[in-house]
Amino acid sequence: MKANEHFYEVFSRGDVEAMDALWADAPHVTCLHPGMRLLAGRAAVMGSWESLLSRPPTLRLRCDHASVQLLGSVAVVTCYEGGGAEPAHLAATNVFVKDGEHWRMVHHHAGPLTHPVPRQDLASLN
Amino acid sequence: MKANEHFYEVFSRGDVEAMDALWADAPHVTCLHPGMRLLAGRAAVMGSWESLLSRPPTLRLRCDHASVQLLGSVAVVTCYEGGGAEPAHLAATNVFVKDGEHWRMVHHHAGPLTHPVPRQDLASLN
Repeated sequence: MKANEHFYEVFSRGDVEAMDALWADAPHVTCLHPGMRLLAGRAAVMGSWESLLSRPPTLRLRCDHASVQLLGSVAVVTCYEGGGAEPAHLAATNVFVKDGEHWRMVHHHAGPLTHPVPRQDLASLN
Repeated sequence: MKANEHFYEVFSRGDVEAMDALWADAPHVTCLHPGMRLLAGRAAVMGSWESLLSRPPTLRLRCDHASVQLLGSVAVVTCYEGGGAEPAHLAATNVFVKDGEHWRMVHHHAGPLTHPVPRQDLASLN
């Protein structure tokens, strides 16, 4: 799904403005960064991205094995997140809502995998 | 949200049949248990609940600080999960879809909190 790929491109570029644009313009968006407490509301969520993305070095984050549940105008995407060529160390849930032509993020949740998933394992996953 | 509370009641009762009934009758439901790889498809997801819930002792799991994003016929619920009276040690995303009169679960994602959230902290959370 393009909107989900776009999220990881934007993260990897450290582009705060594009990150702001890809989140829905809705008051009650939510975000659970790995291990952290809930961020609720656009100001809290965007503040966290500004703080994460504006400090170097930029982390190239990729999304492996993306899987989409399409629920009308809502899409629930799951994937594994990994930095560079390292085994993926996080599992993520990304929720998007269709807004005209665009899918915009309304929720992001990433949490640690007990056993990181090497890229060569992907072919064998269900 | 009642459907979300029901999920934690059913978990705490170790009721596999009720757990099956509260998940959507859809092929592509998904589940990320803490630290684990993605389970995709009804058979894989229900197999995990059967295995988790059918072995004693039953864990009383509560849901603190539930927050709902209502997106038409889809609800995205976030909350903290804790066992008994212990500080909550997991953060969760639960996604439900409206099916007639009922909300049914289509995705569950729980991951560890770096710093567990004591119940007495809840009043001060945003």
